[in-house]
Amino acid sequence: MEITNLDNTLVQLRAALERDDLTGAVAIIQAMRPPDQADLFAELDDEDQAALLPELHPADSADILEELDEEDAAELVGTLPTQTVIRIVDEMEPDEAADLLGDIRPEQAQAVLAGLEDPNEVRPLLLHPDDSAGGLMTSEFLALRRRMTAAEAIQAVRAWKPEVETVYYLFVVDRYGKLCGVVNLRQLIIADPATPLAEIMDPDVISVPVGTDQEECARLMARYGLLALPVVNGDNRLLGVITVDDVVDVLEEETTEDFQRLGGAQPLDRAYLDTGVLTVTRKRVGWLLLLFLTETLTGSVLRHFENELQEAVALAFFVPLLIGTGGNAGSQTTSTIIRALAVGDIDLADALRALWHELRVGLLLGTAMAGIAYVRALTWGSSPALALSVALAIFTIVVWANGLGSFLPLLAARLRIDPTVVSGPVMSTLVDATGLFIYFTIAHAILGL
Amino acid sequence: MEITNLDNTLVQLRAALERDDLTGAVAIIQAMRPPDQADLFAELDDEDQAALLPELHPADSADILEELDEEDAAELVGTLPTQTVIRIVDEMEPDEAADLLGDIRPEQAQAVLAGLEDPNEVRPLLLHPDDSAGGLMTSEFLALRRRMTAAEAIQAVRAWKPEVETVYYLFVVDRYGKLCGVVNLRQLIIADPATPLAEIMDPDVISVPVGTDQEECARLMARYGLLALPVVNGDNRLLGVITVDDVVDVLEEETTEDFQRLGGAQPLDRAYLDTGVLTVTRKRVGWLLLLFLTETLTGSVLRHFENELQEAVALAFFVPLLIGTGGNAGSQTTSTIIRALAVGDIDLADALRALWHELRVGLLLGTAMAGIAYVRALTWGSSPALALSVALAIFTIVVWANGLGSFLPLLAARLRIDPTVVSGPVMSTLVDATGLFIYFTIAHAILGL
Repeated sequence: MEITNLDNTLVQLRAALERDDLTGAVAIIQAMRPPDQADLFAELDDEDQAALLPELHPADSADILEELDEEDAAELVGTLPTQTVIRIVDEMEPDEAADLLGDIRPEQAQAVLAGLEDPNEVRPLLLHPDDSAGGLMTSEFLALRRRMTAAEAIQAVRAWKPEVETVYYLFVVDRYGKLCGVVNLRQLIIADPATPLAEIMDPDVISVPVGTDQEECARLMARYGLLALPVVNGDNRLLGVITVDDVVDVLEEETTEDFQRLGGAQPLDRAYLDTGVLTVTRKRVGWLLLLFLTETLTGSVLRHFENELQEAVALAFFVPLLIGTGGNAGSQTTSTIIRALAVGDIDLADALRALWHELRVGLLLGTAMAGIAYVRALTWGSSPALALSVALAIFTIVVWANGLGSFLPLLAARLRIDPTVVSGPVMSTLVDATGLFIYFTIAHAILGL
Repeated sequence: MEITNLDNTLVQLRAALERDDLTGAVAIIQAMRPPDQADLFAELDDEDQAALLPELHPADSADILEELDEEDAAELVGTLPTQTVIRIVDEMEPDEAADLLGDIRPEQAQAVLAGLEDPNEVRPLLLHPDDSAGGLMTSEFLALRRRMTAAEAIQAVRAWKPEVETVYYLFVVDRYGKLCGVVNLRQLIIADPATPLAEIMDPDVISVPVGTDQEECARLMARYGLLALPVVNGDNRLLGVITVDDVVDVLEEETTEDFQRLGGAQPLDRAYLDTGVLTVTRKRVGWLLLLFLTETLTGSVLRHFENELQEAVALAFFVPLLIGTGGNAGSQTTSTIIRALAVGDIDLADALRALWHELRVGLLLGTAMAGIAYVRALTWGSSPALALSVALAIFTIVVWANGLGSFLPLLAARLRIDPTVVSGPVMSTLVDATGLFIYFTIAHAILGL
């Protein structure tokens, strides 16, 4: 099976809608897989979306709402009659339903909740923050008792017809509902039918408390290769299960935030083109201003060395070159260190080793750059003394940038601040003012200005 | 169950090794989960590793080798006797075994391969590049025939005792071995035992050709929430299966590469602290030099405006401020656009919309920054004319940086170059020279120099 070309399908879908052929449009959408349905759907304008969604099979509409951006889904649902919404939400997985209800108007959410087939599956999930284990988990899980036999457990799986297809782990609880083991479907099938679960199950289950941050849950599941992660309360009672599909989304979302922070901006809450120009501006202007104000330090440094500049205006020619190289070396370092921290290649215990690593890299890079800079300055017609000043300055600045570029993210991590706060722009800005100071101090000494 | 604190365990493990208590060390390691075993193991020095590995249960040793960095695993295996290696490799998943054999000395690989229980499980996997679907897939899968009943299929699962625990999809093939459907364990259990697979299976299977790039495989599995992805040859014959645990690693690896490129360096091939200082330097020096040479353009621009600088040295005070702000605005833009391209929030069809989006953001940000810069220049004692020049320059530079910062990654994507080549450092460097030109041209006109 090949992957469908969505562009062609979108053209057909739009044509069908243009000639008010809702049946045709429904047929096109229902032939696709859920993520593709949602992608197509997201390309339509609001009116078409509101017209089309009630016409689809509620299970398909539910899949589409689950895949859409949260804000888009909430907006769309806000325009639909309550009865339609109830039919669709009944088909959603409880965790996704709870997320949606948390995003729409409270009156509508109340009305929908009251109309659901099984409101008690969704209601407890509304209590937990979206970005915690409780917000991520589903209440739709099968908890088996320890004394059950393999045959009885298989019977229970058969009797239970969950909407979720990804039930491959079954969790075992004691009489108080406390989590005591995990068993997978394959183990059940292979086991002698009369064996009690207590003998088949693996008692060593990894679980998380309900308030755990979603990123922590995602990292645990990735690290231990889990397809499902049980969520417990303070008494170790099983409250819900996080499935791997939710976690892939969390990892992607968190990485996107890291990227945006690394570029020196606050992360956006939704997909790029869906974020208004004003919002994008607001997310960036704070850092840009802060960095601008910090960068005015460079002006103060230059004013401090005004006499030197008056005497030898050629000194100014090297300013952007020196601070630029410092910023680049710093960015290279921070992005490596920040990622190594994020994936666990280094932790705080390795901080000194990492610093020492970067310092040696800085010495090597600084030496190479100093050599090149010396030659380049001479071929530009600078005096040997000026060329020497430039070479020494670039060496010092690169070592300094590498040291600062590794120290600051490690310090942030130590202070429990997200290390991505030390973005490329922050590094450049910090290195600019200090680099100028280094440069003019060296030039002042060597040139005797 | 809580997550074990590895630091304490490491202290105990080292103490056991110090007093040559191999049995104690083995007991400590065997009480842990595989990823933790590997982490502990990686902290030991080479001699201890070589002494300890043969003492562990071969299945544990296999897990550890699978979790270690590929290069570390290959080095370690190179020091062990062939018989020990054979016992361990027999316990590895075939795809991991093939990766390992590809990394060690060819003579040793041949000897190990010849000694394996089932060399034919591993041999075909050696033919495919590590970073393709063929290199990622395992040959250990269960292919069922269409005419089998649900009961027969369950019997087949029972008879088959795979090392992999993650067999939740079973693939259905026709008499020629061509892939024709997929069925999951839950469907098998729920179905009437006499139903043939042809009726239970979902015929709409997503599969990939054996040469598909690993990143493409990972994105497909993430998009469609697949736990296993079948790999086929040109005739649609089933060759192997990629499981979700391999793909989490691929996504992490590719994201790490993106981070490092975005910081303006070539990606490292292995974990940060395991990469020698010389290698880290080599991965960075190329970009640093290229950017340095590009940055020398700024010197040329400044020399071009030497007269203006001589007449009004105060012009120089604003140079780092202006080009710094331009670089920051550009970095904010590229990091957003690059990530939006990577996760599919925008594609090339959206290029014009994205440009228009950024241009408007640039106009807003530029206006805000110009206002602040005007006030800041005046309070610094600059003449109103100089303040106006600075304000106009910063406005133009920010708009230009936002335009360039969105245009270049989109252009790269269009030319099928990895957009992360337009890293923060590249943006800063490009904006530096052009920004200076903009600044001096405006100042020249307004100040009448």
